[in-house]
Amino acid sequence: MAYDNNNIFAKILRGEAPCFKVYEDERNIAFMDVMPQSEGHTLVIPKMAAENIFDLPPDDAASLIQATQKVAAAVKRAIKAPGLMIAQLNGAEAGQTVFHIHMHVIPRWSGADLKLHARELADFEVLKKQAELIKAELERH
Amino acid sequence: MAYDNNNIFAKILRGEAPCFKVYEDERNIAFMDVMPQSEGHTLVIPKMAAENIFDLPPDDAASLIQATQKVAAAVKRAIKAPGLMIAQLNGAEAGQTVFHIHMHVIPRWSGADLKLHARELADFEVLKKQAELIKAELERH
Repeated sequence: MAYDNNNIFAKILRGEAPCFKVYEDERNIAFMDVMPQSEGHTLVIPKMAAENIFDLPPDDAASLIQATQKVAAAVKRAIKAPGLMIAQLNGAEAGQTVFHIHMHVIPRWSGADLKLHARELADFEVLKKQAELIKAELERH
Repeated sequence: MAYDNNNIFAKILRGEAPCFKVYEDERNIAFMDVMPQSEGHTLVIPKMAAENIFDLPPDDAASLIQATQKVAAAVKRAIKAPGLMIAQLNGAEAGQTVFHIHMHVIPRWSGADLKLHARELADFEVLKKQAELIKAELERH
């Protein structure tokens, strides 16, 4: 499938759609998932137009995982999450819903089931507050 | 928690425990998960002794995701999987059961539920055959 320049993350990258951004570097940005699977669910995406892990140039993949390390550590501290899952879905059959590659950073607690993805819109005031906590942690370290 | 040198992946890396290996480079190895969540479930791990994504040096993280790209592409072709999930769990609260960082490469099909992790041992003859198919794909590309 060819990369669709009108996917929502492409629009966020072009500044045509809003997001609760927590991080940006030369090659990546990170922002809150608006349909979170758990409290503090954050996405890290490369600026490179790539649909999935197979299409992403290795240099961009390296930069993406390093950005994910930074963001994940900040999310863990900000949300006070004891556990944290990193997930990356390729293809609709794997549950991919936006066809620009993204790393899910998902805080986890013992015994708390994951919500299904992309079913319920979060309270934007809550997301905004979480984004501020995560940004503060990124600035602290 | 301090890194435990006697975890099963540390033993595999030292050659003290067996595995169905599909890939090795200077910094990483990949092998079949013996308790697969789906057909073709493969693990990619760094040789660096690190418990989780927070402890892994950025250079090793970069190498790990690049190895994962190669292995994932080979798994997808070998297992003929339409979708593929990459997952990496940090902490028991997130479902981590072996405390050496590992990337799960999990083939996915529409409508097929994921098995729970680490509940059921696979048929080793099946794993061996799958490993051979994946190795052949890695050699082909």
